[in-house]
Amino acid sequence: MTIEELRIRIDELDRQLVELLSERARAAQMIGHLKAATSLPVYEPNREKIIYANVRAANKGPLPDIELTHIYERIIDVMRALQRNELASQRHAQAAEQEGGALGHAAGESSSETGKKS
Amino acid sequence: MTIEELRIRIDELDRQLVELLSERARAAQMIGHLKAATSLPVYEPNREKIIYANVRAANKGPLPDIELTHIYERIIDVMRALQRNELASQRHAQAAEQEGGALGHAAGESSSETGKKS
Repeated sequence: MTIEELRIRIDELDRQLVELLSERARAAQMIGHLKAATSLPVYEPNREKIIYANVRAANKGPLPDIELTHIYERIIDVMRALQRNELASQRHAQAAEQEGGALGHAAGESSSETGKKS
Repeated sequence: MTIEELRIRIDELDRQLVELLSERARAAQMIGHLKAATSLPVYEPNREKIIYANVRAANKGPLPDIELTHIYERIIDVMRALQRNELASQRHAQAAEQEGGALGHAAGESSSETGKKS
């Protein structure tokens, strides 16, 4: 394989990676949604330990575990931020809804913004 | 879906992510191998721009482009380190081989270590 062919393959792999990361993000968002209802915290160290253990167990190389962990630290950081956003926008919506209940409909309607694009 | 079910799905996605990242790493390693032969540099800013553009074009959310870019900065850092390793071990092997040519077989034989696990 030439460098050019390998790069075409890498670009294809990157598109698949984006798809998987997006699906993972949607699942994290849904968990954030459920956490808002149960008042579970976003940061759960035991759950994160399980994620790292799962990743290391799946690793057959050539990346050393430590390098894969570096990538996952960043993935988890980003997912945690997304989950926090989801939680915050939901609490904001709930607060506005309660306020809306007391003051009328207007406040509730303005809370439909999700803030996902920030 | 419950939190538990979503986590099972995330663990499955993570195993698929590790597989794709490993395949991407193997391709980067092969490029490192080819670069050693052509004396191309590891860091190629124009190629990296193409990678980021490809990733952003593939992104349909929910992760904002900036967050996906954060993840990719880490992925590229790790791949670059792997490629540097590949290049260094190859140059080391070549140097040892030349030395081996002058001094005999012993030096060439000791150069088969790849250093990938460091």
